[in-house]
Amino acid sequence: MPIHVGALHLYEPPPDAGPDFTRAMYEHMRDSTHPSPLFRKHPHRSWRTAGIPMWRTDEEFDIEHHLRHSALPAPGRVRELFELCGRLHSSRLGWDRPMWEMHVIEGLADGRVATYTKLHHALLDGVAAMRLLASVLSTDPERRGMPAPFADGAAPPRDKRLAPAGASAFPGADVLRSALSLSAEAAGMPSALLRTLARGVRNETSAVSLSAPRTLLNRPITGSRRVAAQDWPVPRLRAVARAGDATLNDVVLAMCSGAMRRYLNELDALPEESMVAMVPIGLNARQVAVASAEGGNAVGSVMVRLATHRPDPADRLATISASMRDGKQALATMTPAQIVAMSALGMAPAVALPMLGLHRLAPPPFNLIISNVPGPKVPHYWNGARLVGSYPLSIPIDNMALNITCTSYDDKMGFGLTGCRRTVPHLQRLLTHLDEELVALERAVGAS
Amino acid sequence: MPIHVGALHLYEPPPDAGPDFTRAMYEHMRDSTHPSPLFRKHPHRSWRTAGIPMWRTDEEFDIEHHLRHSALPAPGRVRELFELCGRLHSSRLGWDRPMWEMHVIEGLADGRVATYTKLHHALLDGVAAMRLLASVLSTDPERRGMPAPFADGAAPPRDKRLAPAGASAFPGADVLRSALSLSAEAAGMPSALLRTLARGVRNETSAVSLSAPRTLLNRPITGSRRVAAQDWPVPRLRAVARAGDATLNDVVLAMCSGAMRRYLNELDALPEESMVAMVPIGLNARQVAVASAEGGNAVGSVMVRLATHRPDPADRLATISASMRDGKQALATMTPAQIVAMSALGMAPAVALPMLGLHRLAPPPFNLIISNVPGPKVPHYWNGARLVGSYPLSIPIDNMALNITCTSYDDKMGFGLTGCRRTVPHLQRLLTHLDEELVALERAVGAS
Repeated sequence: MPIHVGALHLYEPPPDAGPDFTRAMYEHMRDSTHPSPLFRKHPHRSWRTAGIPMWRTDEEFDIEHHLRHSALPAPGRVRELFELCGRLHSSRLGWDRPMWEMHVIEGLADGRVATYTKLHHALLDGVAAMRLLASVLSTDPERRGMPAPFADGAAPPRDKRLAPAGASAFPGADVLRSALSLSAEAAGMPSALLRTLARGVRNETSAVSLSAPRTLLNRPITGSRRVAAQDWPVPRLRAVARAGDATLNDVVLAMCSGAMRRYLNELDALPEESMVAMVPIGLNARQVAVASAEGGNAVGSVMVRLATHRPDPADRLATISASMRDGKQALATMTPAQIVAMSALGMAPAVALPMLGLHRLAPPPFNLIISNVPGPKVPHYWNGARLVGSYPLSIPIDNMALNITCTSYDDKMGFGLTGCRRTVPHLQRLLTHLDEELVALERAVGAS
Repeated sequence: MPIHVGALHLYEPPPDAGPDFTRAMYEHMRDSTHPSPLFRKHPHRSWRTAGIPMWRTDEEFDIEHHLRHSALPAPGRVRELFELCGRLHSSRLGWDRPMWEMHVIEGLADGRVATYTKLHHALLDGVAAMRLLASVLSTDPERRGMPAPFADGAAPPRDKRLAPAGASAFPGADVLRSALSLSAEAAGMPSALLRTLARGVRNETSAVSLSAPRTLLNRPITGSRRVAAQDWPVPRLRAVARAGDATLNDVVLAMCSGAMRRYLNELDALPEESMVAMVPIGLNARQVAVASAEGGNAVGSVMVRLATHRPDPADRLATISASMRDGKQALATMTPAQIVAMSALGMAPAVALPMLGLHRLAPPPFNLIISNVPGPKVPHYWNGARLVGSYPLSIPIDNMALNITCTSYDDKMGFGLTGCRRTVPHLQRLLTHLDEELVALERAVGAS
């Protein structure tokens, strides 16, 4: 199974761009930049390393293997873009080279340029990857001569607290403790903590977990992926949040909930009970201190009732909002061991869950993972090309066939959906349902 | 390591084709045809099958997973086509679906349409695959309503003798004896035969083998591929053959020999001794009878001295011609056991060699595999689109980093080169060298 994260970025070429802008962008990235050490290392295991995977610098680094120029067939709609990105997101990264790829994609009918970037989870987790890519951009549309996102000297993620397993931690580490098998945090976690976590998520303690109905998302998956992405204005979501006495993140969850309800209803597969989402969240100061001391991390997770069984959008939003508050309170009362465990789970669910065997439980502890990571608030540029869309793509796993990851950018909330191509049919319909649900929420809470 | 064969086909759209011809071709293939059973089966292994891989029909067959519409970035030269095909040829086919893909590719600047097809070796060997794809075409440019090459009811390969491990043998077989681990023939081969073969290729018997120098091709390989392809007029090759008292196949080998010499010279890596090629050939009637009785096959192999150390093209051609005659004579004097062994080796070298461990010998028994398979002699069409180029792509393996497979079509000899992207640098240069070498041969034997 592929365990890499991805990012789809859309750019508007600068006003002075010629017809060859995409090729020029590709060639500039290819020729002008020396990749940073992070992007030149690959895992290696031999008798010399006693069978333990170690990082090794690729001495025959071949930029054309990693940076690729691709194109969409006519008519060049987003549909063709999603199809290509789904294919690219399906293939595994080999161990024999640094585990990343970046595609510069031409052929969108509206003239925009897309980039699809893929990184093995061992290099950077999804959040850190999105931030690293964004951090090399500039707020100055006139700036030129900027290096590729993977270049040496490209700025590191600025908010260290939210880019925890990132660039800084790994290049120096000799042993590949990370997501090749499991996250660095989880690897250092004593088995007592694992048991605590497993009990928690199995609903054997009341504090942190719920039980979830089995749905079509909770089935074994194949290795092939479908992706879809779209954004909505943050002010619209914020107005719903205000009118509904909820947070922006609650509204994101309510949109997902309503969209899932519509989607499963169409397939005649809506469960009678509420679906449950695992939602990674930032920890508070005390929790961070505990998690850090134990080698854990600043991202935890809560289980949220999505209220997919309730027909009224306002009801769903209120339930989600209350459930999120409950989850955060439960997190506040957790023991240090539980905090560390939930932190590992929030940080790298796609590697921690299979390790814990949690994804094989029936009923499943939750139905899907929904993440929401704040991004830059103002427009960013790469050599004059304006970034107009930013969408994270993540890692479905067995029995968690759909992943929704959101990020805000320039007053837009970008939703990135990644699903198993076989297990999650008609993934693109969820975009329509997300749109319908935002409208329904606006009406229901009187925000339109 | 990927063990699939591929084919690159180039079509000229019919005179009445609109600008959407490629999309129409893709959609017609996608919508109008039901794939044949061969293309709906995938391997499956579970406790029910006692861990043995079995064929199973894919009940959720998803044509869009297998048939794909792709595009080249500008400027749409063959260079961009090779780059895309190299990438497509690098990714492995998963077990969870039928193990094939076909890409309909638009964006060539000259208006031609390309298809790249990829098949796991267990479905069809390369020869059978090329023939199956060609067999569904028509010699009638006016014919329309033709199904996709993978359709049910598409004509079977016409020359059974040369399409031996093909469509007919596998769909009915329950046990996946084939190239998932090794060829069907080799799997049924007693270990005494394997020892005979190993001795033969290790040069412990004088009849069938030579020793070869170690070259840069004879190194471990990575999983990523580069491909290149081009054709030359058969009449030019035939004139060289006549003037040089050689066969058409000898001229193909001489072109490869001279091109390898130029290529390795440029890299300052030409060995002092002659390189040796393994060349699959058809067996004669007696050999076929022996091979068939033992479960073997109608394709054997001989080891041919390429005379890469000799500076004169005419010398090289004469040496190759003599070495090929010697090899065929040696094959004629072989024992039944040896014939069966050489037949397995000729049939499926990429799976038989690793099984025998022959690819790990130092010095290697041979440096590369060069195959040449006759194809249709007259122009063929698919719904009015004329097939103008047909190039097989094959399987490099550890210590055999380059594969050359040729096929004739419509009086052109198409060369398909498949190499490890890292181990075989500048693969495309070999095309220039093949061209230079044909000119040099024409001069040397007085055929120009």
